[in-house]
Amino acid sequence: MPIADPPLDADRLWSDVMALAEITDPNHPYTRRSFTPLFLKGRAWLAGRFAEAGLTVRIDPAGNLIGRIEGRNPSLGVIALGSHSDSVPSGGRFDGMAGIAAGLEVVRALHDARVRFDHALEVIDFLAEEPSEFGLSCVGSRGMTGALAPKMLAMTGPGNETLGNALRRVGGDPDRLDAARRSDIAAFLELHIEQGRVLESRTLDIGIVTSIVGVRRLQIEFEGAADHAGTTPMNLRRDALVAGAHTVVAVRSLAEQISAAGSDYFAATVGILNVEPQGSNIVPGRCRMVVDIRATHPALTEKFVEAIERESAQHAASARVSRAPLVTLSDGPPVACDPHLRDLLRTSASELGLRATDLASGAGHDAAFMTRICPAAMVFVPCRDGKSHAPEEWADREAIAAGAAVMLEAVKTLDQSLAHGAASKQGAA
Amino acid sequence: MPIADPPLDADRLWSDVMALAEITDPNHPYTRRSFTPLFLKGRAWLAGRFAEAGLTVRIDPAGNLIGRIEGRNPSLGVIALGSHSDSVPSGGRFDGMAGIAAGLEVVRALHDARVRFDHALEVIDFLAEEPSEFGLSCVGSRGMTGALAPKMLAMTGPGNETLGNALRRVGGDPDRLDAARRSDIAAFLELHIEQGRVLESRTLDIGIVTSIVGVRRLQIEFEGAADHAGTTPMNLRRDALVAGAHTVVAVRSLAEQISAAGSDYFAATVGILNVEPQGSNIVPGRCRMVVDIRATHPALTEKFVEAIERESAQHAASARVSRAPLVTLSDGPPVACDPHLRDLLRTSASELGLRATDLASGAGHDAAFMTRICPAAMVFVPCRDGKSHAPEEWADREAIAAGAAVMLEAVKTLDQSLAHGAASKQGAA
Repeated sequence: MPIADPPLDADRLWSDVMALAEITDPNHPYTRRSFTPLFLKGRAWLAGRFAEAGLTVRIDPAGNLIGRIEGRNPSLGVIALGSHSDSVPSGGRFDGMAGIAAGLEVVRALHDARVRFDHALEVIDFLAEEPSEFGLSCVGSRGMTGALAPKMLAMTGPGNETLGNALRRVGGDPDRLDAARRSDIAAFLELHIEQGRVLESRTLDIGIVTSIVGVRRLQIEFEGAADHAGTTPMNLRRDALVAGAHTVVAVRSLAEQISAAGSDYFAATVGILNVEPQGSNIVPGRCRMVVDIRATHPALTEKFVEAIERESAQHAASARVSRAPLVTLSDGPPVACDPHLRDLLRTSASELGLRATDLASGAGHDAAFMTRICPAAMVFVPCRDGKSHAPEEWADREAIAAGAAVMLEAVKTLDQSLAHGAASKQGAA
Repeated sequence: MPIADPPLDADRLWSDVMALAEITDPNHPYTRRSFTPLFLKGRAWLAGRFAEAGLTVRIDPAGNLIGRIEGRNPSLGVIALGSHSDSVPSGGRFDGMAGIAAGLEVVRALHDARVRFDHALEVIDFLAEEPSEFGLSCVGSRGMTGALAPKMLAMTGPGNETLGNALRRVGGDPDRLDAARRSDIAAFLELHIEQGRVLESRTLDIGIVTSIVGVRRLQIEFEGAADHAGTTPMNLRRDALVAGAHTVVAVRSLAEQISAAGSDYFAATVGILNVEPQGSNIVPGRCRMVVDIRATHPALTEKFVEAIERESAQHAASARVSRAPLVTLSDGPPVACDPHLRDLLRTSASELGLRATDLASGAGHDAAFMTRICPAAMVFVPCRDGKSHAPEEWADREAIAAGAAVMLEAVKTLDQSLAHGAASKQGAA
């Protein structure tokens, strides 16, 4: 592996990733859902690692766990690195955690080597990046960037708890969200596993993210009649699942068409589907699904939603059930990463002798929200078979360390260039 | 309402139905699932009503709650009336309970009037007629008729409890199931709401059931890959729900064809469908469904299952997922009701001035298992809009009382005719 200056401790970085992975629901590895006791246990461990590395630790009002080292020139603001420590149910060990561990290792290596910085450095564990039980993702990065609307705090999760109360429970303060909004961040970098097959298939070391897909989540709900499955003749049924099943088929077929038609990235998925009342001898009276729609071009999302709106209404009519108005649960537009930071990452990779390429991210990330308040960019590292959100998710020790090395070199250059006014216009603190 | 001799107390019968309805999950009326604390509370109340009426109360090894009055001639055996007190989730107040209340009122009216009987009379609350959380229906009537196989006792429900342990918990004894098997029942009659629209649409009072459909429950399970919904291109997905949705559509379409093609009754329903891991941003890795198949002719079920086996395999291949071998969760053949008992019910209805018709039952009932050990028949009473298994389920006070009156008259005749050897051959105790 190419050696950064000062050198990173790849073993220490790796052992952090592995240690956090142990904090999981033992029956469903690797599960550390946001807002759960396990999540808080993971954060307590992380806070300990931040403190051992000499960082000052705090939780901001948006529930983000932040470790910080002050710089020589307080007026220059902060260079921030980070990702998230929560997981999907039965997810992997790297999605999120690799980015926190890499950020921590970069700051720790610089701190250990007594490199003096003009900017303050922060490592951020954003709260609830994955879709939470409250139906919202990127809770912490929304809060940090002014995108956590008051009505979102009223969303409810297990036991009818509001997101606002859950936020308070993990150390945030829903009444002081304004104080979470930052204007002092000069640049943000996030390392993440690619979650795709581009780097692996081309045996590349580093992906430099050009843009991050927009993600819209749409709820489609059908209501029919929960009649007896034995005594209701086929032609008199109002089966909500039949309308739902036709709609799942339509989502898939339409997404395949749009995805195959152009060079823009497009994908749509029904990942959640619920049937009520779930009795083997009861015609389903209700069927609810959530459609996840991703595109690098907003027009594709609009085109898809229009078609699904039309087709789901037709399927409802055929099954003689009613379809509620479609509900947009969340809607994040596609965003571009900062060109100057991308150049910097490309140069750093090149100087370290690593093979890099530009690529778009099909997954949403906290970095997408961070583009609202500062220049932001992402480093992707290869992962096995493109797998993520599953226990088999894997990235090699060397791959993560290489990505961290690129970040370390970029942070050093950034500290100097920003201090001397060479940042992109957006970048001025 | 025509008056039986001795007269029934229609108000007392009705108030029993209404009182048991109050014992429900308050958030999901009317729910009294078998094996739950609510179910036991309902049974405790019922046992009290049985005892107040002068019946001796016991729970047999198969978990059936039985109230009994001895007859003058122990060698003649038992005339039994009954149904079930458990409900589906968010079900109604009449399905099952009307039959127990009617049976109790018949015995109570005879006992109050000091009518002396040659046969012993029993009122039976069969355990878990509706599909239970253990995946099995008619647990109690299976047990009473030798159809509760040892392997069924190993089926598991909530918290991985076995059905055998649950049976013990509600007062049964899984180690003594042989003792639950009866050979002393001379006749069985069950009153039930029709759960269909025939009686209501023709303004008839009484349905005399000719046959009860066979019910087969089939589990179909697909396994794909739980990949990231953002980063897995549409053409590389192995989406288990896509195969599942196509299969739901196929079940519906095929059932419509078979049902429309002939005069035999046929229906098929996907009432249970589960998706895993249920994350909005995760491609479904697993999809499991239960198909409920009902027919008055076994060949239709065979034809349907063959077609679904073939089509589900094709849909699995198209979605690049695997389909597990189909699992038959339960399989009850169609059965005919006893001709002599049907005649008797028809005569009783006629003598009471009630309008009756023959009809088939699309729903399974405990009576179907009882045909294995004794002559059995059913009285249907009209219900509003044919609705059942839903909170709107409704039968009028007078309709239930009329059905009970038909049973009372039939029981009186039966007691004499069986005692004098005029029963059908099967009927000899």
